[in-house]
Amino acid sequence: MYVHTPTPSQTPKTAPTIKRSAFFVSDGTAITAETLGRSLLSQFGDVDFDIKIIPYVDTPELAHDAVARIEQAYQLSGLKPLVFDTIVSDEIRTIINGATACNLDIYEGLISRIADEIGHEPNPHAGMAHGDVDSEDYKSRIDAVHFALDNDDGARTTHYDGADIILIGLSRSGKTPTSIYLALQFGIRAANYPLTEEDLDSSNLPKSLQPYRHKLFGLTIDTERLVRIRQERKAGSRYASLAQCQEEQRAIQAIYTAQKIPNLNVSEMSVEEIATRILQITGLKRRIG
Amino acid sequence: MYVHTPTPSQTPKTAPTIKRSAFFVSDGTAITAETLGRSLLSQFGDVDFDIKIIPYVDTPELAHDAVARIEQAYQLSGLKPLVFDTIVSDEIRTIINGATACNLDIYEGLISRIADEIGHEPNPHAGMAHGDVDSEDYKSRIDAVHFALDNDDGARTTHYDGADIILIGLSRSGKTPTSIYLALQFGIRAANYPLTEEDLDSSNLPKSLQPYRHKLFGLTIDTERLVRIRQERKAGSRYASLAQCQEEQRAIQAIYTAQKIPNLNVSEMSVEEIATRILQITGLKRRIG
Repeated sequence: MYVHTPTPSQTPKTAPTIKRSAFFVSDGTAITAETLGRSLLSQFGDVDFDIKIIPYVDTPELAHDAVARIEQAYQLSGLKPLVFDTIVSDEIRTIINGATACNLDIYEGLISRIADEIGHEPNPHAGMAHGDVDSEDYKSRIDAVHFALDNDDGARTTHYDGADIILIGLSRSGKTPTSIYLALQFGIRAANYPLTEEDLDSSNLPKSLQPYRHKLFGLTIDTERLVRIRQERKAGSRYASLAQCQEEQRAIQAIYTAQKIPNLNVSEMSVEEIATRILQITGLKRRIG
Repeated sequence: MYVHTPTPSQTPKTAPTIKRSAFFVSDGTAITAETLGRSLLSQFGDVDFDIKIIPYVDTPELAHDAVARIEQAYQLSGLKPLVFDTIVSDEIRTIINGATACNLDIYEGLISRIADEIGHEPNPHAGMAHGDVDSEDYKSRIDAVHFALDNDDGARTTHYDGADIILIGLSRSGKTPTSIYLALQFGIRAANYPLTEEDLDSSNLPKSLQPYRHKLFGLTIDTERLVRIRQERKAGSRYASLAQCQEEQRAIQAIYTAQKIPNLNVSEMSVEEIATRILQITGLKRRIG
Protein backbone atom coordinates (compact mmCIF):
# COMPACT_ATOMS: atom_id res chain seq x y z
CA MET A 1 0.00 0.00 0.00
CA TYR A 2 1.24 3.44 -0.93
CA VAL A 3 1.96 5.54 2.14
CA HIS A 4 2.18 9.27 1.73
CA THR A 5 4.96 10.86 3.83
CA PRO A 6 4.13 14.54 4.05
CA THR A 7 6.91 17.15 4.01
CA PRO A 8 6.63 19.57 6.97
CA SER A 9 4.80 22.28 5.00
CA GLN A 10 2.24 19.72 3.88
CA THR A 11 1.58 18.24 7.31
CA PRO A 12 -2.16 18.20 7.69
CA LYS A 13 -3.50 19.74 10.88
CA THR A 14 -5.73 16.76 11.47
CA ALA A 15 -5.43 13.19 10.34
CA PRO A 16 -7.07 12.68 6.96
CA THR A 17 -10.57 11.32 7.36
CA ILE A 18 -11.22 7.94 5.87
CA LYS A 19 -14.22 8.31 3.62
CA ARG A 20 -16.63 5.60 2.68
CA SER A 21 -16.91 5.01 -1.05
CA ALA A 22 -20.18 5.20 -2.92
CA PHE A 23 -20.27 3.64 -6.39
CA PHE A 24 -22.85 4.44 -9.06
CA VAL A 25 -22.76 1.52 -11.49
CA SER A 26 -24.78 1.05 -14.65
CA ASP A 27 -24.85 -0.68 -18.01
CA GLY A 28 -25.74 2.70 -19.55
CA THR A 29 -24.60 6.24 -18.77
CA ALA A 30 -25.10 5.73 -15.00
CA ILE A 31 -27.00 9.02 -14.91
CA THR A 32 -30.07 7.40 -13.37
CA ALA A 33 -27.98 5.61 -10.71
CA GLU A 34 -26.10 8.82 -9.99
CA THR A 35 -29.21 10.99 -9.78
CA LEU A 36 -30.92 8.67 -7.34
CA GLY A 37 -27.73 7.87 -5.42
CA ARG A 38 -26.83 11.53 -4.87
CA SER A 39 -30.39 12.25 -3.84
CA LEU A 40 -30.24 9.48 -1.22
CA LEU A 41 -26.78 10.50 0.01
CA SER A 42 -27.95 14.11 0.37
CA GLN A 43 -30.18 12.80 3.18
CA PHE A 44 -26.97 12.19 5.14
CA GLY A 45 -25.78 15.74 4.66
CA ASP A 46 -23.01 15.66 7.25
CA VAL A 47 -21.33 12.52 5.95
CA ASP A 48 -18.70 12.85 3.24
CA PHE A 49 -18.54 10.07 0.66
CA ASP A 50 -15.91 9.26 -1.92
CA ILE A 51 -18.01 9.01 -5.06
CA LYS A 52 -17.06 6.89 -8.05
CA ILE A 53 -19.09 6.45 -11.20
CA ILE A 54 -18.76 3.39 -13.43
CA PRO A 55 -20.87 3.61 -16.59
CA TYR A 56 -21.27 1.09 -19.42
CA VAL A 57 -20.75 -2.09 -17.41
CA ASP A 58 -22.32 -4.24 -20.10
CA THR A 59 -20.15 -7.36 -20.20
CA PRO A 60 -19.21 -9.90 -17.50
CA GLU A 61 -15.55 -8.81 -17.91
CA LEU A 62 -16.40 -5.18 -17.18
CA ALA A 63 -18.53 -6.34 -14.25
CA HIS A 64 -15.56 -8.19 -12.79
CA ASP A 65 -13.42 -5.05 -13.28
CA ALA A 66 -16.02 -3.03 -11.40
CA VAL A 67 -16.08 -5.60 -8.59
CA ALA A 68 -12.28 -5.35 -8.35
CA ARG A 69 -12.56 -1.57 -7.90
CA ILE A 70 -15.22 -1.99 -5.23
CA GLU A 71 -13.12 -4.58 -3.38
CA GLN A 72 -10.09 -2.28 -3.55
CA ALA A 73 -12.09 0.59 -2.04
CA TYR A 74 -13.16 -1.74 0.75
CA GLN A 75 -9.60 -2.91 1.38
CA LEU A 76 -8.21 0.62 1.50
CA SER A 77 -10.84 2.08 3.81
CA GLY A 78 -12.02 -0.91 5.80
CA LEU A 79 -15.55 0.38 5.16
CA LYS A 80 -18.02 -1.44 2.99
CA PRO A 81 -18.74 0.70 -0.07
CA LEU A 82 -22.31 1.63 -0.94
CA VAL A 83 -23.10 0.37 -4.44
CA PHE A 84 -26.07 1.91 -6.26
CA ASP A 85 -26.71 0.06 -9.46
CA THR A 86 -29.25 0.21 -12.26
CA ILE A 87 -28.25 -2.85 -14.23
CA VAL A 88 -30.79 -4.62 -16.36
CA SER A 89 -29.02 -7.90 -17.09
CA ASP A 90 -29.43 -10.50 -14.35
CA GLU A 91 -26.05 -12.02 -15.15
CA ILE A 92 -24.17 -8.75 -14.80
CA ARG A 93 -26.11 -7.64 -11.76
CA THR A 94 -25.33 -10.91 -10.01
CA ILE A 95 -21.61 -10.35 -10.54
CA ILE A 96 -21.81 -6.80 -9.14
CA ASN A 97 -23.82 -8.02 -6.16
CA GLY A 98 -20.98 -10.42 -5.38
CA ALA A 99 -18.71 -7.59 -4.21
CA THR A 100 -18.10 -7.03 -0.50
CA ALA A 101 -20.40 -4.05 -0.31
CA CYS A 102 -23.75 -2.72 0.74
CA ASN A 103 -25.65 -3.39 -2.48
CA LEU A 104 -28.47 -0.95 -3.12
CA ASP A 105 -29.86 -2.61 -6.17
CA ILE A 106 -32.27 0.03 -7.39
CA TYR A 107 -34.12 -1.94 -10.05
CA GLU A 108 -34.45 -5.12 -8.02
CA GLY A 109 -37.96 -5.52 -6.82
CA LEU A 110 -39.27 -2.38 -8.49
CA ILE A 111 -39.35 -3.85 -11.99
CA SER A 112 -41.05 -7.04 -10.84
CA ARG A 113 -43.62 -5.06 -8.84
CA ILE A 114 -44.44 -3.00 -11.93
CA ALA A 115 -44.63 -6.16 -14.06
CA ASP A 116 -47.03 -7.78 -11.58
CA GLU A 117 -49.22 -4.70 -11.43
CA ILE A 118 -49.53 -4.10 -15.15
CA GLY A 119 -49.56 -7.78 -16.10
CA HIS A 120 -46.82 -7.33 -18.64
CA GLU A 121 -43.34 -8.80 -18.74
CA PRO A 122 -40.45 -6.34 -19.09
CA ASN A 123 -38.29 -6.46 -22.21
CA PRO A 124 -34.99 -5.76 -20.53
CA HIS A 125 -32.60 -3.58 -22.46
CA ALA A 126 -29.91 -1.26 -21.23
CA GLY A 127 -29.41 2.39 -21.91
CA MET A 128 -32.89 3.42 -22.98
CA ALA A 129 -33.42 5.88 -20.16
CA HIS A 130 -32.64 8.91 -22.30
CA GLY A 131 -35.04 8.15 -25.09
CA ASP A 132 -34.87 7.37 -28.74
CA VAL A 133 -32.76 9.84 -30.71
CA ASP A 134 -35.00 9.37 -33.73
CA SER A 135 -38.13 10.41 -31.86
CA GLU A 136 -39.90 13.74 -32.31
CA ASP A 137 -39.32 14.38 -28.60
CA TYR A 138 -35.59 14.15 -29.01
CA LYS A 139 -35.62 16.48 -32.02
CA SER A 140 -37.71 18.99 -30.06
CA ARG A 141 -35.10 18.94 -27.33
CA ILE A 142 -32.22 19.60 -29.69
CA ASP A 143 -34.15 22.30 -31.56
CA ALA A 144 -34.95 23.96 -28.25
CA VAL A 145 -31.27 24.00 -27.27
CA HIS A 146 -30.37 25.70 -30.52
CA PHE A 147 -33.24 28.14 -30.03
CA ALA A 148 -32.02 29.02 -26.53
CA LEU A 149 -28.51 29.69 -27.78
CA ASP A 150 -29.63 31.74 -30.75
CA ASN A 151 -31.88 33.83 -28.55
CA ASP A 152 -29.62 34.18 -25.53
CA ASP A 153 -28.98 37.49 -23.85
CA GLY A 154 -31.12 39.52 -26.23
CA ALA A 155 -28.85 38.43 -29.11
CA ARG A 156 -31.75 38.93 -31.46
CA THR A 157 -35.34 39.83 -30.84
CA THR A 158 -36.86 38.88 -34.18
CA HIS A 159 -37.65 35.29 -33.34
CA TYR A 160 -39.80 35.81 -30.28
CA ASP A 161 -42.86 34.59 -32.18
CA GLY A 162 -41.35 31.13 -31.88
CA ALA A 163 -40.55 31.38 -28.17
CA ASP A 164 -42.56 29.52 -25.54
CA ILE A 165 -41.27 31.87 -22.87
CA ILE A 166 -38.97 34.89 -22.66
CA LEU A 167 -37.02 35.22 -19.44
CA ILE A 168 -36.15 38.75 -18.40
CA GLY A 169 -34.12 40.07 -15.51
CA LEU A 170 -31.01 42.00 -14.58
CA SER A 171 -27.60 41.04 -15.86
CA ARG A 172 -26.36 37.92 -13.98
CA SER A 173 -29.67 36.92 -12.47
CA GLY A 174 -29.51 33.38 -13.91
CA LYS A 175 -31.43 33.74 -17.17
CA THR A 176 -28.97 31.93 -19.43
CA PRO A 177 -28.53 28.66 -17.50
CA THR A 178 -32.27 28.56 -16.87
CA SER A 179 -33.08 28.97 -20.58
CA ILE A 180 -30.65 26.20 -21.44
CA TYR A 181 -32.03 23.88 -18.81
CA LEU A 182 -35.64 24.48 -19.90
CA ALA A 183 -34.58 23.49 -23.41
CA LEU A 184 -32.50 20.46 -22.57
CA GLN A 185 -34.77 18.97 -19.93
CA PHE A 186 -38.23 19.99 -21.08
CA GLY A 187 -37.85 20.88 -24.77
CA ILE A 188 -39.16 24.37 -24.04
CA ARG A 189 -38.06 27.14 -26.39
CA ALA A 190 -36.84 29.83 -24.02
CA ALA A 191 -35.37 33.16 -25.12
CA ASN A 192 -33.84 35.53 -22.62
CA TYR A 193 -33.37 39.26 -22.57
CA PRO A 194 -31.37 41.27 -20.03
CA LEU A 195 -32.94 44.50 -18.86
CA THR A 196 -30.02 46.92 -18.85
CA GLU A 197 -29.72 50.46 -17.56
CA GLU A 198 -31.22 51.95 -20.71
CA ASP A 199 -34.22 49.63 -20.55
CA LEU A 200 -34.76 50.50 -16.90
CA ASP A 201 -35.10 54.24 -17.45
CA SER A 202 -38.87 54.15 -17.57
CA SER A 203 -41.44 51.69 -16.30
CA ASN A 204 -42.14 50.71 -19.90
CA LEU A 205 -40.86 47.58 -21.48
CA PRO A 206 -38.33 47.85 -24.29
CA LYS A 207 -40.10 48.06 -27.66
CA SER A 208 -38.93 44.64 -28.80
CA LEU A 209 -40.59 43.01 -25.80
CA GLN A 210 -43.89 44.89 -25.84
CA PRO A 211 -45.73 42.58 -28.25
CA TYR A 212 -44.75 39.57 -26.13
CA ARG A 213 -45.77 40.66 -22.66
CA HIS A 214 -47.77 37.45 -22.18
CA LYS A 215 -44.61 35.40 -22.72
CA LEU A 216 -42.44 37.29 -20.25
CA PHE A 217 -41.26 35.85 -16.96
CA GLY A 218 -38.99 37.77 -14.59
CA LEU A 219 -36.13 36.39 -12.54
CA THR A 220 -35.23 38.36 -9.44
CA ILE A 221 -32.32 37.92 -7.09
CA ASP A 222 -31.37 39.37 -3.69
CA THR A 223 -29.32 42.55 -4.06
CA GLU A 224 -26.53 41.30 -1.84
CA ARG A 225 -26.18 38.17 -3.94
CA LEU A 226 -26.29 40.11 -7.19
CA VAL A 227 -23.47 42.37 -5.96
CA ARG A 228 -21.39 39.32 -5.05
CA ILE A 229 -21.90 37.63 -8.41
CA ARG A 230 -21.10 40.81 -10.32
CA GLN A 231 -18.04 41.48 -8.14
CA GLU A 232 -16.71 38.04 -9.06
CA ARG A 233 -17.08 39.04 -12.67
CA LYS A 234 -15.99 42.71 -12.67
CA ALA A 235 -14.52 43.55 -9.28
CA GLY A 236 -14.64 47.21 -8.29
CA SER A 237 -16.77 48.29 -11.27
CA ARG A 238 -19.75 50.58 -11.11
CA TYR A 239 -21.72 47.66 -12.63
CA ALA A 240 -20.97 45.63 -9.50
CA SER A 241 -21.49 48.40 -6.95
CA LEU A 242 -24.16 48.19 -4.29
CA ALA A 243 -25.66 51.54 -5.33
CA GLN A 244 -25.98 50.49 -8.97
CA CYS A 245 -27.47 47.10 -8.10
CA GLN A 246 -29.96 48.70 -5.70
CA GLU A 247 -31.06 51.17 -8.34
CA GLU A 248 -31.51 48.46 -10.97
CA GLN A 249 -33.46 46.33 -8.51
CA ARG A 250 -35.82 49.18 -7.70
CA ALA A 251 -36.35 49.91 -11.39
CA ILE A 252 -36.99 46.32 -12.45
CA GLN A 253 -39.43 45.70 -9.61
CA ALA A 254 -41.32 48.79 -10.78
CA ILE A 255 -41.55 47.30 -14.27
CA TYR A 256 -42.70 43.90 -13.00
CA THR A 257 -45.42 45.59 -10.95
CA ALA A 258 -46.53 48.09 -13.59
CA GLN A 259 -46.60 45.46 -16.34
CA LYS A 260 -47.95 42.66 -14.14
CA ILE A 261 -45.13 40.29 -15.09
CA PRO A 262 -44.95 37.07 -13.05
CA ASN A 263 -41.58 36.75 -11.39
CA LEU A 264 -39.60 34.57 -9.05
CA ASN A 265 -36.80 35.19 -6.58
CA VAL A 266 -34.18 32.63 -7.57
CA SER A 267 -31.49 33.54 -5.03
CA GLU A 268 -31.42 30.18 -3.28
CA MET A 269 -32.43 27.99 -6.20
CA SER A 270 -30.54 25.66 -8.49
CA VAL A 271 -31.35 25.79 -12.21
CA GLU A 272 -33.37 22.59 -11.77
CA GLU A 273 -35.50 24.28 -9.13
CA ILE A 274 -35.92 27.52 -11.08
CA ALA A 275 -37.02 25.67 -14.22
CA THR A 276 -39.47 23.45 -12.34
CA ARG A 277 -40.96 26.39 -10.44
CA ILE A 278 -41.41 28.34 -13.68
CA LEU A 279 -43.43 25.48 -15.18
CA GLN A 280 -45.51 25.34 -12.03
CA ILE A 281 -46.17 29.10 -11.90
CA THR A 282 -46.83 29.68 -15.59
CA GLY A 283 -48.57 26.41 -16.39
CA LEU A 284 -46.28 26.16 -19.41
CA LYS A 285 -46.33 22.63 -20.81
CA ARG A 286 -43.21 20.66 -21.55
CA ARG A 287 -42.73 19.79 -25.17
CA ILE A 288 -41.25 16.44 -24.30
CA GLY A 289 -42.11 13.59 -21.97
CA MET B 1 -67.86 11.93 -17.17
CA TYR B 2 -67.06 13.95 -20.28
CA VAL B 3 -67.66 11.93 -23.44
CA HIS B 4 -66.04 13.10 -26.61
CA THR B 5 -68.28 12.76 -29.68
CA PRO B 6 -66.02 12.90 -32.67
CA THR B 7 -67.13 14.60 -35.87
CA PRO B 8 -66.79 12.35 -38.93
CA SER B 9 -63.43 13.78 -40.01
CA GLN B 10 -62.06 13.19 -36.54
CA THR B 11 -63.26 9.62 -36.18
CA PRO B 12 -60.30 7.64 -34.95
CA LYS B 13 -59.52 4.50 -36.92
CA THR B 14 -59.31 2.45 -33.74
CA ALA B 15 -60.88 2.98 -30.37
CA PRO B 16 -58.67 5.16 -28.16
CA THR B 17 -56.51 3.01 -25.92
CA ILE B 18 -56.94 3.46 -22.22
CA LYS B 19 -53.53 4.22 -20.83
CA ARG B 20 -52.36 3.55 -17.32
CA SER B 21 -51.17 6.64 -15.47
CA ALA B 22 -47.73 6.92 -13.96
CA PHE B 23 -47.21 9.68 -11.41
CA PHE B 24 -43.83 11.09 -10.40
CA VAL B 25 -44.36 12.78 -7.04
CA SER B 26 -41.84 14.64 -4.92
CA ASP B 27 -41.43 17.29 -2.26
CA GLY B 28 -38.75 18.86 -4.48
CA THR B 29 -38.44 19.27 -8.24
CA ALA B 30 -39.45 15.61 -8.86
CA ILE B 31 -36.47 15.29 -11.19
CA THR B 32 -35.07 12.32 -9.26
CA ALA B 33 -38.45 10.57 -9.22
CA GLU B 34 -38.90 11.27 -12.91
CA THR B 35 -35.41 10.14 -13.90
CA LEU B 36 -35.76 6.83 -12.10
CA GLY B 37 -39.41 6.37 -13.06
CA ARG B 38 -38.77 6.89 -16.77
CA SER B 39 -35.80 4.58 -16.60
CA LEU B 40 -37.96 1.85 -15.06
CA LEU B 41 -40.84 2.41 -17.48
CA SER B 42 -38.43 2.21 -20.42
CA GLN B 43 -38.01 -1.45 -19.47
CA PHE B 44 -41.61 -1.92 -20.60
CA GLY B 45 -40.93 -0.39 -24.01
CA ASP B 46 -44.15 -1.53 -25.69
CA VAL B 47 -46.48 -0.16 -23.00
CA ASP B 48 -47.68 3.40 -23.27
CA PHE B 49 -48.17 5.28 -20.00
CA ASP B 50 -49.91 8.57 -19.30
CA ILE B 51 -47.22 10.40 -17.34
CA LYS B 52 -47.99 13.09 -14.78
CA ILE B 53 -45.44 14.94 -12.71
CA ILE B 54 -46.31 16.52 -9.36
CA PRO B 55 -43.41 18.47 -7.83
CA TYR B 56 -43.23 20.36 -4.53
CA VAL B 57 -45.69 18.26 -2.55
CA ASP B 58 -44.42 19.59 0.76
CA THR B 59 -47.54 20.09 2.87
CA PRO B 60 -50.30 17.65 3.91
CA GLU B 61 -52.78 19.77 1.90
CA LEU B 62 -50.75 19.38 -1.28
CA ALA B 63 -50.40 15.67 -0.55
CA HIS B 64 -54.19 15.34 -0.36
CA ASP B 65 -54.48 17.23 -3.64
CA ALA B 66 -52.02 14.79 -5.22
CA VAL B 67 -54.00 11.83 -3.86
CA ALA B 68 -57.16 13.29 -5.39
CA ARG B 69 -55.45 13.43 -8.79
CA ILE B 70 -54.24 9.85 -8.45
CA GLU B 71 -57.73 8.67 -7.44
CA GLN B 72 -59.24 10.50 -10.41
CA ALA B 73 -56.81 8.81 -12.81
CA TYR B 74 -57.81 5.48 -11.30
CA GLN B 75 -61.53 6.24 -11.63
CA LEU B 76 -61.22 7.34 -15.25
CA SER B 77 -59.12 4.43 -16.46
CA GLY B 78 -60.06 1.64 -14.09
CA LEU B 79 -56.32 0.89 -13.89
CA LYS B 80 -54.31 1.45 -10.74
CA PRO B 81 -51.81 4.22 -11.40
CA LEU B 82 -48.12 3.63 -10.76
CA VAL B 83 -46.86 6.18 -8.23
CA PHE B 84 -43.11 6.79 -8.03
CA ASP B 85 -42.32 9.03 -5.13
CA THR B 86 -39.21 10.46 -3.52
CA ILE B 87 -40.74 12.10 -0.48
CA VAL B 88 -38.65 12.60 2.61
CA SER B 89 -41.31 13.43 5.19
CA ASP B 90 -42.97 10.37 6.73
CA GLU B 91 -46.21 12.28 7.25
CA ILE B 92 -46.50 13.32 3.62
CA ARG B 93 -45.37 9.99 2.26
CA THR B 94 -48.02 8.22 4.33
CA ILE B 95 -50.73 10.38 2.80
CA ILE B 96 -49.50 9.66 -0.74
CA ASN B 97 -49.30 5.94 0.01
CA GLY B 98 -52.98 6.06 0.95
CA ALA B 99 -54.03 6.48 -2.68
CA THR B 100 -55.52 3.55 -4.60
CA ALA B 101 -52.37 2.91 -6.56
CA CYS B 102 -49.29 0.77 -7.01
CA ASN B 103 -46.96 2.69 -4.71
CA LEU B 104 -43.33 2.49 -5.74
CA ASP B 105 -41.88 4.31 -2.82
CA ILE B 106 -38.32 4.81 -3.99
CA TYR B 107 -36.74 6.03 -0.77
CA GLU B 108 -38.48 3.54 1.49
CA GLY B 109 -36.08 0.91 2.59
CA LEU B 110 -33.07 2.36 0.78
CA ILE B 111 -32.50 5.19 3.27
CA SER B 112 -32.81 2.90 6.26
CA ARG B 113 -30.44 0.36 4.67
CA ILE B 114 -27.86 3.10 4.14
CA ALA B 115 -28.35 4.36 7.70
CA ASP B 116 -27.83 0.85 9.10
CA GLU B 117 -24.72 0.30 7.02
CA ILE B 118 -23.00 3.59 7.81
CA GLY B 119 -24.22 3.78 11.41
CA HIS B 120 -25.54 7.27 10.96
CA GLU B 121 -29.07 8.59 11.18
CA PRO B 122 -30.33 10.57 8.18
CA ASN B 123 -31.21 14.23 8.61
CA PRO B 124 -34.23 14.30 6.37
CA HIS B 125 -34.68 17.40 4.28
CA ALA B 126 -36.35 17.87 0.95
CA GLY B 127 -34.99 19.32 -2.23
CA MET B 128 -31.27 18.96 -1.68
CA ALA B 129 -30.70 16.65 -4.63
CA HIS B 130 -29.36 19.40 -6.89
CA GLY B 131 -26.78 20.72 -4.51
CA ASP B 132 -26.08 23.92 -2.68
CA VAL B 133 -26.17 26.98 -4.91
CA ASP B 134 -23.49 28.63 -2.79
CA SER B 135 -21.02 25.79 -3.32
CA GLU B 136 -17.96 26.02 -5.55
CA ASP B 137 -19.36 23.08 -7.52
CA TYR B 138 -22.48 25.01 -8.38
CA LYS B 139 -20.48 28.05 -9.46
CA SER B 140 -18.29 25.85 -11.66
CA ARG B 141 -21.40 24.54 -13.34
CA ILE B 142 -22.78 27.97 -14.09
CA ASP B 143 -19.39 29.27 -15.25
CA ALA B 144 -19.07 26.27 -17.54
CA VAL B 145 -22.48 26.98 -19.09
CA HIS B 146 -21.46 30.55 -19.83
CA PHE B 147 -18.15 29.31 -21.23
CA ALA B 148 -19.94 26.87 -23.55
CA LEU B 149 -22.21 29.59 -24.87
CA ASP B 150 -19.43 32.10 -25.37
CA ASN B 151 -17.35 29.54 -27.21
CA ASP B 152 -20.08 27.89 -29.23
CA ASP B 153 -19.75 27.24 -32.94
CA GLY B 154 -16.29 28.79 -33.27
CA ALA B 155 -17.75 32.14 -32.10
CA ARG B 156 -14.32 33.05 -30.83
CA THR B 157 -11.11 31.13 -30.66
CA THR B 158 -9.15 33.30 -28.23
CA HIS B 159 -10.32 31.59 -25.07
CA TYR B 160 -9.26 28.04 -25.84
CA ASP B 161 -6.59 28.21 -23.13
CA GLY B 162 -9.45 28.00 -20.66
CA ALA B 163 -11.20 25.09 -22.35
CA ASP B 164 -11.15 21.58 -20.92
CA ILE B 165 -12.10 20.16 -24.30
CA ILE B 166 -12.82 21.47 -27.79
CA LEU B 167 -15.38 19.51 -29.77
CA ILE B 168 -14.94 19.55 -33.52
CA GLY B 169 -17.02 18.09 -36.30
CA LEU B 170 -19.13 18.91 -39.32
CA SER B 171 -22.00 21.35 -39.14
CA ARG B 172 -24.98 19.67 -37.40
CA SER B 173 -23.11 16.75 -35.93
CA GLY B 174 -24.28 17.49 -32.37
CA LYS B 175 -21.45 19.63 -31.00
CA THR B 176 -23.57 22.37 -29.45
CA PRO B 177 -25.97 20.28 -27.33
CA THR B 178 -23.05 18.10 -26.23
CA SER B 179 -21.00 21.13 -25.11
CA ILE B 180 -23.95 22.46 -23.17
CA TYR B 181 -24.63 19.13 -21.51
CA LEU B 182 -20.96 18.66 -20.53
CA ALA B 183 -21.15 22.07 -18.84
CA LEU B 184 -24.46 21.69 -17.09
CA GLN B 185 -24.05 18.12 -15.90
CA PHE B 186 -20.31 17.83 -15.31
CA GLY B 187 -19.07 21.43 -15.00
CA ILE B 188 -16.71 20.80 -17.93
CA ARG B 189 -15.70 23.83 -19.97
CA ALA B 190 -16.34 22.73 -23.53
CA ALA B 191 -15.80 24.88 -26.60
CA ASN B 192 -16.89 23.74 -30.02
CA TYR B 193 -15.71 24.53 -33.52
CA PRO B 194 -17.37 23.49 -36.78
CA LEU B 195 -15.03 22.33 -39.52
CA THR B 196 -16.48 23.98 -42.61
CA GLU B 197 -15.63 23.58 -46.27
CA GLU B 198 -12.71 25.98 -46.07
CA ASP B 199 -11.22 24.14 -43.10
CA LEU B 200 -11.58 20.84 -44.90
CA ASP B 201 -9.51 21.82 -47.93
CA SER B 202 -6.33 20.31 -46.59
CA SER B 203 -5.61 17.67 -43.99
CA ASN B 204 -4.27 20.39 -41.71
CA LEU B 205 -6.19 21.80 -38.82
CA PRO B 206 -7.30 25.43 -38.97
CA LYS B 207 -4.61 27.70 -37.48
CA SER B 208 -6.69 28.62 -34.45
CA LEU B 209 -6.97 24.96 -33.43
CA GLN B 210 -3.38 23.90 -34.03
CA PRO B 211 -2.02 24.86 -30.59
CA TYR B 212 -4.83 22.88 -28.93
CA ARG B 213 -4.60 19.55 -30.70
CA HIS B 214 -4.44 17.71 -27.37
CA LYS B 215 -7.82 19.20 -26.39
CA LEU B 216 -9.64 18.25 -29.58
CA PHE B 217 -12.31 15.61 -29.77
CA GLY B 218 -14.19 14.79 -32.97
CA LEU B 219 -17.86 13.96 -33.36
CA THR B 220 -18.79 11.92 -36.40
CA ILE B 221 -22.17 10.99 -37.73
CA ASP B 222 -23.46 8.64 -40.43
CA THR B 223 -23.72 10.39 -43.79
CA GLU B 224 -27.33 9.39 -44.31
CA ARG B 225 -28.27 10.87 -40.96
CA LEU B 226 -26.30 14.05 -41.60
CA VAL B 227 -28.12 14.53 -44.91
CA ARG B 228 -31.48 14.09 -43.17
CA ILE B 229 -30.68 16.58 -40.40
CA ARG B 230 -29.38 19.15 -42.88
CA GLN B 231 -32.39 18.64 -45.17
CA GLU B 232 -34.66 19.44 -42.25
CA ARG B 233 -32.77 22.66 -41.82
CA LYS B 234 -32.12 23.73 -45.44
CA ALA B 235 -34.10 21.50 -47.77
CA GLY B 236 -32.76 21.21 -51.29
CA SER B 237 -29.55 23.12 -50.59
CA ARG B 238 -26.09 22.10 -51.71
CA TYR B 239 -25.19 22.10 -47.99
CA ALA B 240 -27.72 19.32 -47.44
CA SER B 241 -26.91 17.31 -50.58
CA LEU B 242 -25.59 13.76 -50.41
CA ALA B 243 -22.56 14.62 -52.55
CA GLN B 244 -21.57 17.53 -50.33
CA CYS B 245 -22.02 15.56 -47.11
CA GLN B 246 -20.02 12.63 -48.51
CA GLU B 247 -17.19 14.93 -49.50
CA GLU B 248 -17.12 16.61 -46.07
CA GLN B 249 -17.17 13.21 -44.36
CA ARG B 250 -14.22 11.99 -46.38
CA ALA B 251 -12.27 15.16 -45.64
CA ILE B 252 -12.93 15.22 -41.91
CA GLN B 253 -12.03 11.54 -41.50
CA ALA B 254 -8.75 12.31 -43.24
CA ILE B 255 -8.06 15.05 -40.71
CA TYR B 256 -8.94 12.85 -37.73
CA THR B 257 -6.60 10.17 -39.03
CA ALA B 258 -3.74 12.46 -40.02
CA GLN B 259 -3.91 14.41 -36.78
CA LYS B 260 -4.68 11.41 -34.57
CA ILE B 261 -7.76 13.05 -33.07
CA PRO B 262 -9.95 10.77 -30.94
CA ASN B 263 -13.47 10.66 -32.29
CA LEU B 264 -16.84 9.06 -31.75
CA ASN B 265 -19.72 8.17 -34.03
CA VAL B 266 -22.71 9.73 -32.28
CA SER B 267 -25.42 8.78 -34.79
CA GLU B 268 -27.47 6.68 -32.39
CA MET B 269 -26.61 8.47 -29.16
CA SER B 270 -28.47 10.92 -26.95
CA VAL B 271 -26.53 13.90 -25.59
CA GLU B 272 -26.32 12.10 -22.24
CA GLU B 273 -24.66 9.14 -23.92
CA ILE B 274 -22.30 11.24 -26.02
CA ALA B 275 -21.14 13.23 -22.99
CA THR B 276 -20.62 10.15 -20.84
CA ARG B 277 -18.71 8.32 -23.58
CA ILE B 278 -16.46 11.35 -24.11
CA LEU B 279 -15.49 11.31 -20.43
CA GLN B 280 -14.80 7.61 -20.67
CA ILE B 281 -12.69 7.84 -23.84
CA THR B 282 -10.69 10.94 -22.93
CA GLY B 283 -10.36 10.34 -19.19
CA LEU B 284 -11.43 13.97 -18.73
CA LYS B 285 -12.43 14.59 -15.13
CA ARG B 286 -15.66 16.24 -14.15
CA ARG B 287 -15.28 19.51 -12.33
CA ILE B 288 -18.25 18.79 -10.12
CA GLY B 289 -19.49 15.87 -8.08
